[in-house]
Amino acid sequence: MSLKIALAQINFLVGNIPANVDHMVDAAIIARDELQADIIVFPELSITGYPAEDLLLRSDFISAANNAIYQLGDRVADIAMVVGFPEQDGDALYNSAVVLHQGVILACYRKQALPNYGVFDEQRYFTPGHQPCVFEFNGTFIGLTICEDVWKSGIIEASQQAGAELLLTLNASPFNSGKIHQREAIICQQVHAAKIPLVYVNQVGGQDELIFDGASFVVDAQGEIVFRAEEFKEQISVIEFEGSTPIKAQCAPLYNEISSEYQALVLGIKDYVRKNGFQGALLGLSGGIDSALVLALAVDALGADKVEVVLMPSRYTQDMSNEDALLQAKVLGVNHHIIPIEPAVNAFTDMLADVFSGAAKDTTEENIQARCRGVVLMALSNKQGKLLLTTGNKSEMSVGYATLYGDMAGGFAPIKDVPKLLVYQLAKYRNSLSEVIPERVITRPPSAELAPDQVDADSLPPYEILDPILERYIELDQSAETIIAAGFNVADVRRAISLVDRNEYKRRQSPPGIRITEKAFGRDRRYPITSGYKGIL
Amino acid sequence: MSLKIALAQINFLVGNIPANVDHMVDAAIIARDELQADIIVFPELSITGYPAEDLLLRSDFISAANNAIYQLGDRVADIAMVVGFPEQDGDALYNSAVVLHQGVILACYRKQALPNYGVFDEQRYFTPGHQPCVFEFNGTFIGLTICEDVWKSGIIEASQQAGAELLLTLNASPFNSGKIHQREAIICQQVHAAKIPLVYVNQVGGQDELIFDGASFVVDAQGEIVFRAEEFKEQISVIEFEGSTPIKAQCAPLYNEISSEYQALVLGIKDYVRKNGFQGALLGLSGGIDSALVLALAVDALGADKVEVVLMPSRYTQDMSNEDALLQAKVLGVNHHIIPIEPAVNAFTDMLADVFSGAAKDTTEENIQARCRGVVLMALSNKQGKLLLTTGNKSEMSVGYATLYGDMAGGFAPIKDVPKLLVYQLAKYRNSLSEVIPERVITRPPSAELAPDQVDADSLPPYEILDPILERYIELDQSAETIIAAGFNVADVRRAISLVDRNEYKRRQSPPGIRITEKAFGRDRRYPITSGYKGIL
Repeated sequence: MSLKIALAQINFLVGNIPANVDHMVDAAIIARDELQADIIVFPELSITGYPAEDLLLRSDFISAANNAIYQLGDRVADIAMVVGFPEQDGDALYNSAVVLHQGVILACYRKQALPNYGVFDEQRYFTPGHQPCVFEFNGTFIGLTICEDVWKSGIIEASQQAGAELLLTLNASPFNSGKIHQREAIICQQVHAAKIPLVYVNQVGGQDELIFDGASFVVDAQGEIVFRAEEFKEQISVIEFEGSTPIKAQCAPLYNEISSEYQALVLGIKDYVRKNGFQGALLGLSGGIDSALVLALAVDALGADKVEVVLMPSRYTQDMSNEDALLQAKVLGVNHHIIPIEPAVNAFTDMLADVFSGAAKDTTEENIQARCRGVVLMALSNKQGKLLLTTGNKSEMSVGYATLYGDMAGGFAPIKDVPKLLVYQLAKYRNSLSEVIPERVITRPPSAELAPDQVDADSLPPYEILDPILERYIELDQSAETIIAAGFNVADVRRAISLVDRNEYKRRQSPPGIRITEKAFGRDRRYPITSGYKGIL
Repeated sequence: MSLKIALAQINFLVGNIPANVDHMVDAAIIARDELQADIIVFPELSITGYPAEDLLLRSDFISAANNAIYQLGDRVADIAMVVGFPEQDGDALYNSAVVLHQGVILACYRKQALPNYGVFDEQRYFTPGHQPCVFEFNGTFIGLTICEDVWKSGIIEASQQAGAELLLTLNASPFNSGKIHQREAIICQQVHAAKIPLVYVNQVGGQDELIFDGASFVVDAQGEIVFRAEEFKEQISVIEFEGSTPIKAQCAPLYNEISSEYQALVLGIKDYVRKNGFQGALLGLSGGIDSALVLALAVDALGADKVEVVLMPSRYTQDMSNEDALLQAKVLGVNHHIIPIEPAVNAFTDMLADVFSGAAKDTTEENIQARCRGVVLMALSNKQGKLLLTTGNKSEMSVGYATLYGDMAGGFAPIKDVPKLLVYQLAKYRNSLSEVIPERVITRPPSAELAPDQVDADSLPPYEILDPILERYIELDQSAETIIAAGFNVADVRRAISLVDRNEYKRRQSPPGIRITEKAFGRDRRYPITSGYKGIL
């Protein structure tokens, strides 16, 4: 008996239940009428989008989500729909998947494994289920599972013991660099051990810090991938099964790592702007590598007509910075303004002269320059309804090499989880497609240009040393002892770690940005500001 | 047989294990030598302080905490110490309490009920225990429990079934208004039902957003409170038991609600400044009620010599604002500066003239003023190492009536969880002790003074209407329908809710502040920024 299953890799808007239902109706009709699918499988919690966070604590929101299931069921006939929703039962809330067919609920499964680590807080909201769920459809026995369930041992097997010949898995599995390989390897291994075919449907799209990469797939009972949907794109695909055996189809190739990272950043900007209703984006273009990369990403995400840049030179800005910034604006065809900050800096200097008389110059004066730029950029953002993008990278966020309310001012921080060395790699990668970043921006030594002849290397270890230390300390939670034992210089380790430790307060006020590593500064690294912990003495 | 138990209501520094151990050693010696105690009970996770958040995911930190238990045991003899620590056992981490006596571990209990709601994330870190723990000491059988355990039914009873005649409970129970009554009522009711005396030891102090209020207590088997320590202060007390029966002692009186709230705010400022090593605090003093209250709180917390204010008048500042601000600075004896913002505002206006030519004035121009003040205040903060306090209240944070990087610029937001009406009550309460806020500041209509003759009531419903709507929507998660059914005007509800919904992005970048309600904008309200949820259409 043949069965056609559609994988609905969809980009939802968290919280907008009516729009998500409409989106699912459209997808189901396409799957039924154009793809002749018998079943369409949507991602985890598709009704609400994922993660809906504390919206899940609102009874009005949960009622709406539960009612929407019935509305959806009534709106589409002649195709079975497998839909994720937060199921209210008495006082308990479950992360559930329901099978709707001809306006009737055929089956309902409650997620058993609720992740509560990293970026996940599912035990804050949900009660775990304890039962497998298998339903018969056109003679095939199909089991339901949700995301984390298939990463754990035992749940697939329990589903098989309950009679499942084929598994459908609803997912909201966020991207980080390398995640797709890890995800496919683990699922294939589980399937290989259990010998049951599996349909894996992931959502796609940017949601605040998180990027969902899609890349839905189908695995046969031998653990071989027989279909893969594209990464970072909405796609409704259909796979034919003979009984429970999937027929091999076209697999989208995997992007390589750098290309995946670039696409994730583009999608993150695009969705933050679109879903939050901005008219476009703007940023300060300094002639340095960070803002150059952010501009390239923004143009790839939004188109040149939606992006605007501002050059804000000061007395410390080198000519080549202005030249390179202008050149890039021209190459990319974006609108630009030149607004020197000297008048505002002078005004503040005069206003503070009495209070500061006798005090030595220090970073205060550098911060004033950065904050004058912040005021200019925010004024443009406010006036035009454009999203201000900040341009700080992860290395800077880690060590606090950024000015609060200055270059940290903005609504979204696209590269805040991109270490500096990766900024260079991404810039080179983008230039390999077409040259949009002037070569000199990539080759000159990095500088904040807030003091005469300043370069980053004056205050920080070289990025070739700093970045690996930061990765070990932040992403891998390694101790100073371990890092030093791995061959790093004690002074460099001390400098890096002590800066990370004492700059939590800055990170706490930074705008959200796109997570591309295993541990970003956001919901996956929750450190106290007030802290006596010293990673190194 | 007589037994003396000391309650160590201590203010720890999260993450500073060596300092916390020293603090416990000192307390144990006082309890033993001055109070003749046989046992001293410390709060939950006393070794690390609470909450240590993701420091608990660092293996170096956990190793240090586990080693510290042995060091502590070796440093104090002749008194039993009941200490909270994160216990590593293989791959599992437990929230545990250990009894140390003569360098030996007499007993170890693993917390069973791990809260994962509101401000709590304990299931992120800990594995639950499943066993009661009872140890014999001088002929008395004593059971151990930790915080949430005694709020749930069944755990006290299981401890009794295992032989406990007396319970020790280690706690880190955060303050919110009215919490002390709720806490005592629930524990007394549990004890009354189970008929077992209970010693409740809470930590005290400010930790980022959270205030721990202390108010440790002892309940007899009838559920009567026979001892209460003071609120908001460190205190080592001793209670004598005949067998398992506590002998009645002096109960510290409870503050009334407004007084508790005021004390909580004072302690929050004091501990944030002290624990983060600032030289003092500074704030912009506008002549309005919010900054007047924050100044009074800061002086009560730090002393007048550690607090500095800046008046930053513009063309829209009324004379009475300057007069009242100066008067308050004088009454409280704090250092003040007057720095008019006009030169900087003019500089930005000129710099932006070309770009803005033809555009109508809007909030952009108001924001520039607020941001010029932010630059001035941050320059002073940077130069002097003083903490900049922001002065926005919860009503403003809710509806976004504040300027990012303007009046929202600063390291700590003392009244961000204080609704506007409560700001007035707290000001009047403080003046009832001694008049430190000029009367006119309390009686004049509130205004942001960013445009000619502006008052808050131009843009917002009156606070008498706004505040109750906000409480229902934010703290109680009520739907618009429910709020309207309670008698509020549809237009007011729509205005309030739609502003709350679309200002999450501002709140996300605001500095931390002191939680005094059941739901603050912080770890207890985790909303997505990108969201299609509309609380009202």
